Amino acid sequence: MTDTEYMRIALQLAKKGCGFTSPNPMVGAVIVKDGEIIGQGYHQKYGELHAERNALANCKTSPAGAAMYVTLEPCCHSGMTPPCTDAILESGIRRVVIGSCDPNPLVGGKGIELLRSCGIEVTKGVLKDECDALNQIFFHYIQNGTPYVIMKYAMTLDGKIATRTGKSQWITGEAARRRVHEDRHRYSAIMAGVGTVLADDPLLTCRLENSRNPLRIVCDTHLKTPLNAKLVTTTGIAATLLATANTDQEKHRPYLEAGCDILVLPQKEGHIDLNCLMTALGERNIDSVILEGGGMLNWSALQCGIVNKVQTYIAPKLFGGCGKTPVMGFGIDSPDQAFHLSKPAISWFEEDILLESEVIRCSQVS
Amino acid sequence: MTDTEYMRIALQLAKKGCGFTSPNPMVGAVIVKDGEIIGQGYHQKYGELHAERNALANCKTSPAGAAMYVTLEPCCHSGMTPPCTDAILESGIRRVVIGSCDPNPLVGGKGIELLRSCGIEVTKGVLKDECDALNQIFFHYIQNGTPYVIMKYAMTLDGKIATRTGKSQWITGEAARRRVHEDRHRYSAIMAGVGTVLADDPLLTCRLENSRNPLRIVCDTHLKTPLNAKLVTTTGIAATLLATANTDQEKHRPYLEAGCDILVLPQKEGHIDLNCLMTALGERNIDSVILEGGGMLNWSALQCGIVNKVQTYIAPKLFGGCGKTPVMGFGIDSPDQAFHLSKPAISWFEEDILLESEVIRCSQVS
Repeated sequence: MTDTEYMRIALQLAKKGCGFTSPNPMVGAVIVKDGEIIGQGYHQKYGELHAERNALANCKTSPAGAAMYVTLEPCCHSGMTPPCTDAILESGIRRVVIGSCDPNPLVGGKGIELLRSCGIEVTKGVLKDECDALNQIFFHYIQNGTPYVIMKYAMTLDGKIATRTGKSQWITGEAARRRVHEDRHRYSAIMAGVGTVLADDPLLTCRLENSRNPLRIVCDTHLKTPLNAKLVTTTGIAATLLATANTDQEKHRPYLEAGCDILVLPQKEGHIDLNCLMTALGERNIDSVILEGGGMLNWSALQCGIVNKVQTYIAPKLFGGCGKTPVMGFGIDSPDQAFHLSKPAISWFEEDILLESEVIRCSQVS
Repeated sequence: MTDTEYMRIALQLAKKGCGFTSPNPMVGAVIVKDGEIIGQGYHQKYGELHAERNALANCKTSPAGAAMYVTLEPCCHSGMTPPCTDAILESGIRRVVIGSCDPNPLVGGKGIELLRSCGIEVTKGVLKDECDALNQIFFHYIQNGTPYVIMKYAMTLDGKIATRTGKSQWITGEAARRRVHEDRHRYSAIMAGVGTVLADDPLLTCRLENSRNPLRIVCDTHLKTPLNAKLVTTTGIAATLLATANTDQEKHRPYLEAGCDILVLPQKEGHIDLNCLMTALGERNIDSVILEGGGMLNWSALQCGIVNKVQTYIAPKLFGGCGKTPVMGFGIDSPDQAFHLSKPAISWFEEDILLESEVIRCSQVS
């Protein structure tokens, strides 16, 4: 087998950690000796052993003289676990093959340097694109300190996210809705506006087996979330954070007693400052947020520049009327001022379509 | 070569007539003798010879004893040209291979029967799906007597057909707009509402070389199209039909003098009756209409049940705001009342997407 083939196995292992490693990256490792895989491992959960140490621990024979294939450059600093480079050096491994280089400023090629200086042969960049794509969120988070934000909505082919009477259940079919729940498992947090809470009283949990729930965030400038809202009454099954500009401790108390967390933020143009919210979330180890906002919150989020990706689910239906659209707010004047997105990647969910685009920053549009 | 391979050549020939045969079908024919193609032809233009007669006329040796491959069942009735079955019988052709059966009630299998009764071997249904698809519009028109209506619009990923200030030039890029012009060549007529004329003063012609212009139809209940609108001043390059409920001959006169045609129709719920318009267009040999309406006209057209296909161009951009959406009007109340469309076919035009769906009648949805 070639380096690429072993790396592909490591990639598959890495993906098993999906949803559980945040804000750490997903990493997989394979140890090969005399053409045989003698150990495999992956980073299973935040706070637990890294992939390299798991693979070494699982070796069925001595790794001395073996090669290690690992999707991300091994760390050489102490975090919650000791440096992986130490473990590699101790193991007697002679060659390390790496997918992505670590974008973490604490590592940044130092792991590779250290290994080389100790006489280990290092090959880097094997399946680099796939390895980088796997940890797009980790890379963003480690470089920016703020979460990667995915604006998600489901609309009809005539651009409506609800009928004229405000009904939106359901626009897409079951297969698309299942994917939405997979994403709730995958990403750290989910965010909605208080308008959505008042209109739909959503639960915002992940309804799949063997899954975790995202942190549920409500953008609630004036603290109008009803105390009997599901997001307030179900803090036993998933955490809820109310982001507000209301500083009245008395008003906070019943939410805190119900188990909600409250984050007080400055106001900006009549709403909580979303940039401050992102900074605060980053400090709380939130590396990714699904934004399931209404048109107003989506507009504000785009205006603030916090949106990284747009997920548009489209159902082949027409609602007509003047119902709500995915992005509302003030809007732009001229088509050349539009928010430009990358050429969409397309996925099918039965008859529904998912289009996924990166937001292209205005400075890049020229 | 096999029957299928010869039929594929006939199909390619048929497509050369695209845009010029309406309201006749596109048809191609290939004549084969001793494994060699000795004649080819297609229906080039409405009123001119049918494919079978063109292929026979082009034979380089006698077609006696040969096989003819033709994409559509030969006609056995006299229309603008004498029956093709006569020409086949006279030619001494021994075998006829057919793609589609003719849905025209005047023919309906009678051509095949006649040929067989005269001792000719007939094989039907070769590449039937492709041959049927080629003449979807002809099949609809001949069975219903009304044009096949394609509702076309271009929107952003947040469902806007214009910015909040009404600007829509341009949403999609050049490649998608070229496809729009190809469709203007292909289909018989293009229809817009007077609102679009007042807002955008469009030309609605086909700007491609070697093309024809569609009949330009304005739905103008109260005859408010300005006399200096491009659609009125350019009747020298393309025909314009004003569909109105206004019966005032004095008001009609300047439009007629400018070369426009006027069609007076009954009113229904404050607008011209679109079903009557479709019947009248059918009687005028219009087999297909591209509907480039605003949200109000699109809604009315859907409500009347005249829309057969929806073409949604989507640009990866976001406008925000409360701008116009593709279908407006009153709108439905509950998602289960939505107009259901078939699973879309997708085409890419650089970074823009075209989704094409058939409208599924409510009766079929159950």
